Amino acid sequence: MKIGLKWIVSFAIITLISIGGLFFDAFFPQVVESDDFLSEDNIVGADVAWILAAAGLVLLMTPGLSFFYGGMVGKKNIISTMLQSFIALGVISILWIIVGFSLSFGDSMGFTINGEHYGIIGNPLSYPFFHGVGVLPHKMMASTIPFVLFALFQMKFAVITPALITGSFAERVRFISYLLFMVLFSIFIYTPLCHMVWHPDGLLNKYFGVKDFAGGTVVHMSAGFAALAGALVLGKRKKPHHEPSNIPFVLLGTGMLWFGWFGFNAGSALAANATAASAFGTTTIASASAMMTWIFFDRINNRKISAMGACIGAVVGLVAITPGCGFVTISESLFIGFISAIVSNTMMNWKALKTIDDTLDVFACHGVGGIMGMILTAIFAHGENASLLHGGLEVFSHHMIALFLVSFFTFFGSLLLYKITNAIITLRVSEESEELGLDISQHEESLS
Amino acid sequence: MKIGLKWIVSFAIITLISIGGLFFDAFFPQVVESDDFLSEDNIVGADVAWILAAAGLVLLMTPGLSFFYGGMVGKKNIISTMLQSFIALGVISILWIIVGFSLSFGDSMGFTINGEHYGIIGNPLSYPFFHGVGVLPHKMMASTIPFVLFALFQMKFAVITPALITGSFAERVRFISYLLFMVLFSIFIYTPLCHMVWHPDGLLNKYFGVKDFAGGTVVHMSAGFAALAGALVLGKRKKPHHEPSNIPFVLLGTGMLWFGWFGFNAGSALAANATAASAFGTTTIASASAMMTWIFFDRINNRKISAMGACIGAVVGLVAITPGCGFVTISESLFIGFISAIVSNTMMNWKALKTIDDTLDVFACHGVGGIMGMILTAIFAHGENASLLHGGLEVFSHHMIALFLVSFFTFFGSLLLYKITNAIITLRVSEESEELGLDISQHEESLS
Amino acid sequence: MKIGLKWIVSFAIITLISIGGLFFDAFFPQVVESDDFLSEDNIVGADVAWILAAAGLVLLMTPGLSFFYGGMVGKKNIISTMLQSFIALGVISILWIIVGFSLSFGDSMGFTINGEHYGIIGNPLSYPFFHGVGVLPHKMMASTIPFVLFALFQMKFAVITPALITGSFAERVRFISYLLFMVLFSIFIYTPLCHMVWHPDGLLNKYFGVKDFAGGTVVHMSAGFAALAGALVLGKRKKPHHEPSNIPFVLLGTGMLWFGWFGFNAGSALAANATAASAFGTTTIASASAMMTWIFFDRINNRKISAMGACIGAVVGLVAITPGCGFVTISESLFIGFISAIVSNTMMNWKALKTIDDTLDVFACHGVGGIMGMILTAIFAHGENASLLHGGLEVFSHHMIALFLVSFFTFFGSLLLYKITNAIITLRVSEESEELGLDISQHEESLS
Repeated sequence: MKIGLKWIVSFAIITLISIGGLFFDAFFPQVVESDDFLSEDNIVGADVAWILAAAGLVLLMTPGLSFFYGGMVGKKNIISTMLQSFIALGVISILWIIVGFSLSFGDSMGFTINGEHYGIIGNPLSYPFFHGVGVLPHKMMASTIPFVLFALFQMKFAVITPALITGSFAERVRFISYLLFMVLFSIFIYTPLCHMVWHPDGLLNKYFGVKDFAGGTVVHMSAGFAALAGALVLGKRKKPHHEPSNIPFVLLGTGMLWFGWFGFNAGSALAANATAASAFGTTTIASASAMMTWIFFDRINNRKISAMGACIGAVVGLVAITPGCGFVTISESLFIGFISAIVSNTMMNWKALKTIDDTLDVFACHGVGGIMGMILTAIFAHGENASLLHGGLEVFSHHMIALFLVSFFTFFGSLLLYKITNAIITLRVSEESEELGLDISQHEESLS
Repeated sequence: MKIGLKWIVSFAIITLISIGGLFFDAFFPQVVESDDFLSEDNIVGADVAWILAAAGLVLLMTPGLSFFYGGMVGKKNIISTMLQSFIALGVISILWIIVGFSLSFGDSMGFTINGEHYGIIGNPLSYPFFHGVGVLPHKMMASTIPFVLFALFQMKFAVITPALITGSFAERVRFISYLLFMVLFSIFIYTPLCHMVWHPDGLLNKYFGVKDFAGGTVVHMSAGFAALAGALVLGKRKKPHHEPSNIPFVLLGTGMLWFGWFGFNAGSALAANATAASAFGTTTIASASAMMTWIFFDRINNRKISAMGACIGAVVGLVAITPGCGFVTISESLFIGFISAIVSNTMMNWKALKTIDDTLDVFACHGVGGIMGMILTAIFAHGENASLLHGGLEVFSHHMIALFLVSFFTFFGSLLLYKITNAIITLRVSEESEELGLDISQHEESLS
Repeated sequence: MKIGLKWIVSFAIITLISIGGLFFDAFFPQVVESDDFLSEDNIVGADVAWILAAAGLVLLMTPGLSFFYGGMVGKKNIISTMLQSFIALGVISILWIIVGFSLSFGDSMGFTINGEHYGIIGNPLSYPFFHGVGVLPHKMMASTIPFVLFALFQMKFAVITPALITGSFAERVRFISYLLFMVLFSIFIYTPLCHMVWHPDGLLNKYFGVKDFAGGTVVHMSAGFAALAGALVLGKRKKPHHEPSNIPFVLLGTGMLWFGWFGFNAGSALAANATAASAFGTTTIASASAMMTWIFFDRINNRKISAMGACIGAVVGLVAITPGCGFVTISESLFIGFISAIVSNTMMNWKALKTIDDTLDVFACHGVGGIMGMILTAIFAHGENASLLHGGLEVFSHHMIALFLVSFFTFFGSLLLYKITNAIITLRVSEESEELGLDISQHEESLS
């Protein structure tokens, strides 16, 4: 077996980074002082305790996702599908410390209008190898916990996003091409979007007033549109099948996701406070509501009540409540779960969309769930002029414009990145490999 | 396939509730002030951090249970059995916010003797749609965390209880009938019992002095007796089998349950304090002790040491320590695990009980474990006059009377509710459906 | 089936211990006062909240390990391999409260040179049945949380260590002999090592200045060398095979281990502080780095990129960072993961070692990973004169001597204990039992 250049390059990169980091440490000692940080007295132990736990919970979502997706695909593709989620824990974690966090939360770069700065992306040199990401809390971001903890909590969000995408091109993507696409997506789509929505000076945040409590826009909409673009670029599978191979795995994945989502949503309060508790509540109720709505809606449309339906429904509810979880009431979260389940379910069963082979319906679940969440947050969010129902017609219309911009950016941006990736290494495996299944053809592994 | 009226009603209910909640919010704005609540200053961040994590852990127990049960049933019933646990996360969470929490912890309704009020059930109008369940801590219940967090923590206990029952009538229950029964059980058995044991004015608490630290009585005894009644009403399976189909799933479920049980038991301290730490210790030791006792007791009774035995033993230990976990010493927890394992194991292998087809021995494990826990708590609990061994003969005898009352109430109450359910929708599936297995007949899903 | 004496003895022991504990409680009441403890005011709620969660996370690692190992063995040995991990939760937890904790953290016994005391092992009578292990924090060990919580957190480390060993002699060890060995190992290898490294007066700590933040030496090196000795003593399997039977289980186990490891490493800060956050970061980055290095290194050595490789790589990274996780920077953790993966991978594929039948490569992963961690910590640890790169040549050379001593002690100590065990009950199952597989021959259980 000849070893392709791409593998030698891959190994060279991990070697250079690993050794390079040591030299970087040696030549550029950590900057200890900066005006951006508060003193150690500002650290609140209880907040640290909760965010440590929450960051662990969000990490668990990626293995959870690997089971959610792995159980749905065909028998010959379970292991490869699961690995595609897992590997994001490796690739994106490393990317994040080198440049991802800087691009997301580094010094804001963008443009200035009327003396106001609007950020598009962070300065990649702000925190290389996490230099400057220390124990002191940042003044503007998570001001009661060590900055390094905030950076690690955010890391897990960056990790799961490309993993979410994989469901759309499952059963036919080349492993190495996926790794390359993941890196490009993270740098050119995820980090600028993250910066624009969550950095205090970010364009979508500061100018459009986009509210995204825990990542409905940053994580789920971006993954959903990238998934749609991916399914289009890679094309249909030779033999699309529809029998999930291991439904207990899907149930396990759903349980792990639901459990982890408390870290995702309630952790996004970045403190052990009442907002976290409230986000915990809206999260669990939206999910419960979407689960029940999904199965009953299936049934009155002449489909059986199924475990698959309950799981997908629950996850759609979790997606849809994500942007608004800290801003709405329990009753509103009940409605958000209900209406999002109906829309996603309808999308999933809509014939037209079925001409696109989005293997595991990532767009219908995460894309549409994210869109619904963004709209519903702009309708229901509490606070003065915060949303349509609270005197914020302007906020609502800004949200709708932002929704369009984000959709456009993530869809066409991803499309371009797939094309670039494809030009470097073909995205799709050979026909024989697809026929064999990716478990054997890509990894020489199989479920006995 | 004709869509039955029951499904149209089901969908109508979830629709009405979801939209109704919005109107309810609009017409009955949240009451902000009440004498029942403390100020925000009383919130202790560390307690919030721990109870957020603990509530997540208790949520994970229900998926854990689905694997514990799912691995034990036959091949044709794995998915349906797992779904029966999962679906409780949907049904009961929603029921809880609408009326369950009010019935459990709302203004106490009951009777008055000699000027003392004894509560039987909460006022269903106290907290509809969680109105009034806000960020301020309640004076009498969990006074250092937001009331909403207490309500959410309690929600997970309400969720797992009906899921525990499902093991007894597994492989033959109709899905929709089970949903209906679950709602009735939660309203008419769980919530009054919860009120009587855990509300400060509850009858069993205030008059009988019942000690139930984390739900041995409320959760496990009630589930155990409802399981016994269920097995009686539904009758024997056509082909009872005894080969568990996936023992690794049982091990996984046990691991998830054990992990989650720390949230259940140590979380029931409702604070990050020494009592929580102590409950953590007694929980792990009772479980360890019961696990070892179970397998050695099996072996000296001429049965093989088995992974199934280790798992069931561990869970019996967890059940038995639940009511007393915050009141006993480590040595006592060791003994509690030991003796409960022997009694449960003996019950499980007792021929007479085997004429009842309690598929997964829910009564022998949870019912008997709960009873043992209640008795042993009344023997060992520390504190002045707190138990038989600490000068509390009266407490002990009250506990025994309460034990009888709870058994009577939960068994005959459940029996009645099964009969009512059965009159509305037949509880048992048809013979052909049972023969086919519920995975295919109820959900058109199967393990390939 | 005749019941062997060994089973009657086993049941007698659990009975005696369970009842004995009650008498012990009765005759030796808990000592309430001691100079070793601080007052309750010193308890920090936030630290309690985090260590409660962390202790739960470390517990979950043992079930996680059971899936990591269980998925790798052959079909006829999955259940028995999983049970071998699980059962450590029973055996070691009980041993720990009776005598293990005393031997590890009881009053230091050892020798005195120049007026300085150096501890070898704790006094077994310090905390029998956890007497004296109460709610007050210890002055010298974990001074902000109840001593009982520290003791419980440490319990989980003692539990997982023998479970780690089982991978080396999987598919051929007799269950009861393993139980006996586990007890001997814990008493004679684990607890003295734990005392020498982690007790304030411990020899390796006080004299050699060994730094082991979270157990690279105590847990992983000791398990690794005991595994090597075990593979030697038990000899080769009749039919070594190399197809893992359930790779999704390996992925699940890896996810659970990774998640739990945050409790292991970040929890070892014993507080919810910046050190915990930093340890969280180095842990996740070393793991990510080792995962990516492993698969790329595999590929350039003409092996396929595999899910198994990704999982093993991730775990090797976690092992290697364990001793240094609280002492090194993010860049250093990236390098630690990288270099440890290359060394472990090379060891695993080194032909000479393959003549020893270490079924699941425990020595190459945990032994070598632990050694690498110990060396790299002595190279990189920050602080004045703390390591080779920070002016601590002496520290480094002491570490190297300690490394040799620990290797010698754990390898030959274990070898001796295997011989003793073997003399009491044969360690290896019969040829027919091995042929049948341990699931059926030891437990009469099988995966249908």
